[in-house]
Amino acid sequence: MTRTVLESKTKTVVIGFDEPFCVIGERINPTGRKKLAAELEQGDFSTVEKDAREQVACGAMVLDVNSGAVFTNKMAEDPRYADNNFVEPPLMRELVTRIQGIVDVPLCIDSSVPGALQNGLEAAEGRPLLNSVTGEEERMELVLPLVKKYNVPVVAISNDDTGISEDPDVRFAVAKKIVERASDFGIPAHDIVVDPLVMPVGAMGSAGQQVFALVRRLREELGVNTTCGASNISFGLPQRHGINGAFLPMAIQAGMTSAIMNPVRMQEMEAIRAANFLMNHDPNGSEWIAFTRIMDAVAAGKTFAEASSDAIAAGSSRRAGGRTGGRRSRG
Amino acid sequence: MTRTVLESKTKTVVIGFDEPFCVIGERINPTGRKKLAAELEQGDFSTVEKDAREQVACGAMVLDVNSGAVFTNKMAEDPRYADNNFVEPPLMRELVTRIQGIVDVPLCIDSSVPGALQNGLEAAEGRPLLNSVTGEEERMELVLPLVKKYNVPVVAISNDDTGISEDPDVRFAVAKKIVERASDFGIPAHDIVVDPLVMPVGAMGSAGQQVFALVRRLREELGVNTTCGASNISFGLPQRHGINGAFLPMAIQAGMTSAIMNPVRMQEMEAIRAANFLMNHDPNGSEWIAFTRIMDAVAAGKTFAEASSDAIAAGSSRRAGGRTGGRRSRG
Repeated sequence: MTRTVLESKTKTVVIGFDEPFCVIGERINPTGRKKLAAELEQGDFSTVEKDAREQVACGAMVLDVNSGAVFTNKMAEDPRYADNNFVEPPLMRELVTRIQGIVDVPLCIDSSVPGALQNGLEAAEGRPLLNSVTGEEERMELVLPLVKKYNVPVVAISNDDTGISEDPDVRFAVAKKIVERASDFGIPAHDIVVDPLVMPVGAMGSAGQQVFALVRRLREELGVNTTCGASNISFGLPQRHGINGAFLPMAIQAGMTSAIMNPVRMQEMEAIRAANFLMNHDPNGSEWIAFTRIMDAVAAGKTFAEASSDAIAAGSSRRAGGRTGGRRSRG
Repeated sequence: MTRTVLESKTKTVVIGFDEPFCVIGERINPTGRKKLAAELEQGDFSTVEKDAREQVACGAMVLDVNSGAVFTNKMAEDPRYADNNFVEPPLMRELVTRIQGIVDVPLCIDSSVPGALQNGLEAAEGRPLLNSVTGEEERMELVLPLVKKYNVPVVAISNDDTGISEDPDVRFAVAKKIVERASDFGIPAHDIVVDPLVMPVGAMGSAGQQVFALVRRLREELGVNTTCGASNISFGLPQRHGINGAFLPMAIQAGMTSAIMNPVRMQEMEAIRAANFLMNHDPNGSEWIAFTRIMDAVAAGKTFAEASSDAIAAGSSRRAGGRTGGRRSRG
């Protein structure tokens, strides 16, 4: 049974075929979040800290930390800021240090810039996930040595120098190539988490079927864990949370073991909690039952983030009273 | 590709591997609905007619018609009413006649009483589904000749004279036995829709996994379509629609092709519409997009049944204007 082990300072999270689905929170990402990028440019980390706390409260087991900010004002004053190789490495170090100062979950170090990956790996306590390598030759030669040196697992995205293929067989072949190349570096398959690439079903009707078939093949033929940017499936569609909320259980049933996604959405998290139960990864349904109390609180008017945070606070006070064990409630 | 063909007076519904999931509305069933049974005892069919219209509006493609009423008052006056063989046959005829008088979808004739099955088959226009045969010897000898005589498909439930096994291999073997026995009667496998029996996941943690594995085996090894009483999975649990809403897409992804369920619940129908799209059984997402308008109307305050009925009425008036084809909107 393939197990990808991640660690924070004190916690271990296992991505695996026999584990609850691993939710990797995607919110700490200034790419496409202009307001967040502007805050980071001014050294304001309040949104990052809020996002870290909220995502963990809502059920994120790992937090993705993306340093892809564009510092528009600084760029105008100092041309070095036009280069992400200049901006991202110190920003990644700062983000990682601050986030692990307030939440105790493994991190996913996410950047296109090798210096940022390196700094993130240096700053992270425990065993973070590296995001990402692709099948591009240059990228493999840059990233795989880091993976080996720091002995961390890595997300492998199924595109290569020819781009993203619409043919799932080609995407499978790219994943296989990365796993083989990693093996040349001494990196085992259980430390590769393949993203088979999710296309929008609105643009390609076979997008869902492609993912389900690829996940099964990746698991059976390569023995690897899988992840995806889950919300891509519903890109451009109305009521996309309804699509996401069906896609996630279907992908889980097909064997997907993690996703990079927004955990501060009840519909998706409800689907995942229910799917964990239905996959027999929630003994006695205790996680489901704890989650239904949050659903009840949302029905009574709270936001999902508020209700989730309250549930954690209540759990902590119960634990302080000695009534439960040491395991952190993710409810 | 296995195709189970059902017909009403003018409409054809195909249950099949390459078809949208077939929703069989379960509401017309006096078993456990005391108020409905009391109405039927008084010859009042208003709830039945409302349930028929609402279920079809909400997306039922087939209506289950169960005649299992207990007529408490009549029983006190006339002991013959204590016998379901006396009560159900005329009731089934009346139910079928009335229902097909107001909605034009194939029916599923559902009774434990052979005389009621026979009367339902006689009264039904088109090609109804018979519900059900089991692996019990007596039941097979009673029901399979009717299936052959009327040339209809049949639901085959995976229990036998030893009861319902908790072992999925035994349930598979029972299904296989029924398919083989049916073959002896000249009934083809594509006219058998197997119900592998869904256990409550709250009582048996492996219940979901059992169903997913069984559905795949039934499809691959016996080539049959499948159905289930979907809501059994969540029996006894809080927020059970959340469990149902994940179970249905997972079962569909595993290959389940129909379910007997309550279609007057938006969460479950939303999950099925999304799953159809993700299985590439909703070209261009047009059914999904039509459904999101109903979701919008529900968000604005309508009930799901009202919003669904309004959507059909709007579709009819559009069709009257000559703007769309002859296919009935199930939106």
